[in-house]
Amino acid sequence: MLSPELSARLGELTDLGAAGALLGWDQQTQMPPAGGEARGEVMATIASLGHERLTAPELGTLLDAAEPEDEQDAAIVRVVRRDHEKASRVPAELAREMELASARAHEPWARARATDDFGLFRPFLEKNLELRRRYVDCFEGAEHPYDTLMDNFEPGLTTARVREVFDRLREGLVPLAAEIAAAEPAPVLPGPFPIAGQQALGRDIARSFGFDESAWRIDLAVHPFASSLNPQDVRVTARYTEENLQGIFAVMHEVGHGLYEHQIDPGLARTTLQTGVSLGIHESQSRLWENLVGRSEPFWRHWGPRLRETFGAGIGDCSDAELLRAINTVEPGLIRVDADEVTYSLHVILRFRLEVAMIEGSLAVADLPEAWNAGMQELLGVEVPDDTRGCLQDIHWSFGELGYFPTYAIGNIVAAQLWEALSAAVPDLDDQVAAGEYGTIRDWLREHVHRYGRTVEPTELLERATGQALDPEPLLAQLRVKYGGLYGLAATPGARS
Amino acid sequence: MLSPELSARLGELTDLGAAGALLGWDQQTQMPPAGGEARGEVMATIASLGHERLTAPELGTLLDAAEPEDEQDAAIVRVVRRDHEKASRVPAELAREMELASARAHEPWARARATDDFGLFRPFLEKNLELRRRYVDCFEGAEHPYDTLMDNFEPGLTTARVREVFDRLREGLVPLAAEIAAAEPAPVLPGPFPIAGQQALGRDIARSFGFDESAWRIDLAVHPFASSLNPQDVRVTARYTEENLQGIFAVMHEVGHGLYEHQIDPGLARTTLQTGVSLGIHESQSRLWENLVGRSEPFWRHWGPRLRETFGAGIGDCSDAELLRAINTVEPGLIRVDADEVTYSLHVILRFRLEVAMIEGSLAVADLPEAWNAGMQELLGVEVPDDTRGCLQDIHWSFGELGYFPTYAIGNIVAAQLWEALSAAVPDLDDQVAAGEYGTIRDWLREHVHRYGRTVEPTELLERATGQALDPEPLLAQLRVKYGGLYGLAATPGARS
Repeated sequence: MLSPELSARLGELTDLGAAGALLGWDQQTQMPPAGGEARGEVMATIASLGHERLTAPELGTLLDAAEPEDEQDAAIVRVVRRDHEKASRVPAELAREMELASARAHEPWARARATDDFGLFRPFLEKNLELRRRYVDCFEGAEHPYDTLMDNFEPGLTTARVREVFDRLREGLVPLAAEIAAAEPAPVLPGPFPIAGQQALGRDIARSFGFDESAWRIDLAVHPFASSLNPQDVRVTARYTEENLQGIFAVMHEVGHGLYEHQIDPGLARTTLQTGVSLGIHESQSRLWENLVGRSEPFWRHWGPRLRETFGAGIGDCSDAELLRAINTVEPGLIRVDADEVTYSLHVILRFRLEVAMIEGSLAVADLPEAWNAGMQELLGVEVPDDTRGCLQDIHWSFGELGYFPTYAIGNIVAAQLWEALSAAVPDLDDQVAAGEYGTIRDWLREHVHRYGRTVEPTELLERATGQALDPEPLLAQLRVKYGGLYGLAATPGARS
Repeated sequence: MLSPELSARLGELTDLGAAGALLGWDQQTQMPPAGGEARGEVMATIASLGHERLTAPELGTLLDAAEPEDEQDAAIVRVVRRDHEKASRVPAELAREMELASARAHEPWARARATDDFGLFRPFLEKNLELRRRYVDCFEGAEHPYDTLMDNFEPGLTTARVREVFDRLREGLVPLAAEIAAAEPAPVLPGPFPIAGQQALGRDIARSFGFDESAWRIDLAVHPFASSLNPQDVRVTARYTEENLQGIFAVMHEVGHGLYEHQIDPGLARTTLQTGVSLGIHESQSRLWENLVGRSEPFWRHWGPRLRETFGAGIGDCSDAELLRAINTVEPGLIRVDADEVTYSLHVILRFRLEVAMIEGSLAVADLPEAWNAGMQELLGVEVPDDTRGCLQDIHWSFGELGYFPTYAIGNIVAAQLWEALSAAVPDLDDQVAAGEYGTIRDWLREHVHRYGRTVEPTELLERATGQALDPEPLLAQLRVKYGGLYGLAATPGARS
């Protein structure tokens, strides 16, 4: 048992986090537009109270005096101490400056994007970058300055390791995408797909995954996201367009995030460890449900009839095989969030390269558009027509969030590793998916991933769940098998003429 | 200009208030049920951070050093100093105990109400009462202990003055209700009133009052309320039943509250003065829109056709005159929140008497049900069949909120006084209402009530707006004229046989 004083402080930090989560969720789903002006300040106040409480010397003293009696309490003390020490290294002045700069950059970024004028955003990105450099300077001993930034999103991951992993990923993905491009293209489902039908189908799929109204909500948002106030108050969002079925996959994705939060050990309640351990592990959960379950052949064996029933004409005269190919269309494109399972990680690799170069100082912000466009040509073979669809497309740099992007590709890799382990543990996995039964998957993920919250570090978690370290091979192998089958590719890359 | 340090502290207090308001609104409108367990703690943490910041000695020092240059800044310093001093008098221990006791009493109260077992709630009410006595002891110099409690809801109002005003109100209302009871009863509209129609009509009426989607929301809630995060983020709630049209009047009521918050001087942004000055003044706004506008003859001259169009059969074959009488049915009943314009204040008078007696010690909690039932017989002439529809009906005592109830009747009184002043200032007021034009009313209320926020004390505000102190005569006179006309009563009470 932790002391009541320490528990009370952790409870307070948790409550501030929940209040901040609600303010953010409301901002994107409920708030009347004119309420936006004041909202930023309310969120900043709650965040800075959280920072104040996290860096309080009294918290350090209580952690030092703690005598944890079991593994869970020991983990709590260890993780909170790390959070406390990290936050305490950053002067309040710099923390505030970073917060302000990221708030101030949002509007110029949005305007730059709307008018395709990178120059409008450039000074704000330069400021964010300068502040991130000063932030990095608060920490010593990192092998690479970018390690310090990544540590906030993926504890334990190094720039050197990401480079290796991403190099291997690129070597596998670029030729695979090229082979698919040379194969017969997937059919395009003609649509339209009425939104009411998508909402009903999305909700029913979400329910089959584990969503239930007693502890979850689903709302509309311009940019879908998942947020949880606690494991019993999970909020996912969706966005639908009549033109395609992306919204349904986005729901599966967000429910995957939600299930992670929902299944964390209730014993971690009112501690800051009752949340996902890293963004990469989190993304592995969303990708697992979206791609490995939701874009699989057995999944559509079950849901295909419902899809045809709902959208009849929108599905055209597709056979089941064509439908599956349509759902798994691969096409190198300009926009990360629209990218398919094969090309997605290439978008991430580009951003990782550019961020590292900017932090190292080898790439000036002024040269970013050119470097972006060259990278898109090299990795995806596409010509970038403007910065709006180029280096201005993502919101992350307006927040100054460097080190975040790699976690998206890490998520794809980890999802494949977990799926491999899950498949080994559950021999009839495909049959269960084909029967619309996901309870075994959910339970396995709870047991091996979710329940731990932040008590087990990401590398250790992966090791325990799969027996392996981070490894891109399962992802590459799975993609090759899946797309090999769908597009009739040769078993060995390059062997097909 | 206030110093940046003082402004920052007021901003922080305001932000904590806004976060608390959002947590409360979400709890009642959006939160999935299982989220409720953690919600109470999050709200308590935000409230206690607010208490901590409000009682901080540094705030006192900054207030002492403030050199306000204009009337508004002087008001800010005065009001915040009073808030600071009041909060500082209450030991943190007692404040926490009061908060916990009120949280703990909720469930037993709900259970007692559901099972008609006052004994379940009794010890919790006793505890709340004991804590309120200890709270009262923190303040000296009040003429009556109940003054100290009322001061949190209606600053400046004394128990002695409420007694006088309520005595006069009772003298006027009891015979008026009796006369109406003896007259030909109003017709009952047969219904049903489909909820979709009520929602559309309610929203259109709300829009005509000043509601607009850019700065407001309207949602469903079990117990309708209004809440605002700031003047540009106003949230009203509604509840409809097919059986009657009460939901539409509840919307007008809540929009009245909302307009008050919406029209406060933007110059008070990020100060704790950018909200209503007292609950009585607040209630005057809701009652003015609900009763003096919304239940008036000219109002239904405009909206009657729309009502008939929407509910055709539900309105039966009522003539316009009968419809107006149906909308203004007077009938002594058991439940305060269902009470009409004439009998409503009698419910309040009973609660005021009982609260004062409990605080004085002349009424033991154990004897409350009996005293309640006797009071209902005396004031409203009704027999109370059980405590569920008797002394357990309101939630307020479960919160320990003594001193709150009088403000409901004060609101009725003030609304009538404001309406008298408004009628004098706007000779064609009825014509405007009959034309569906409420801009003049809205502007007059902004000018004379809303814009001040908390900068002008309630008594002074009323004096400035109406030239009068608190006075029940305009209410009594207006009710007599209105219901005299509707029910064909004699001009002088008692003169009709």
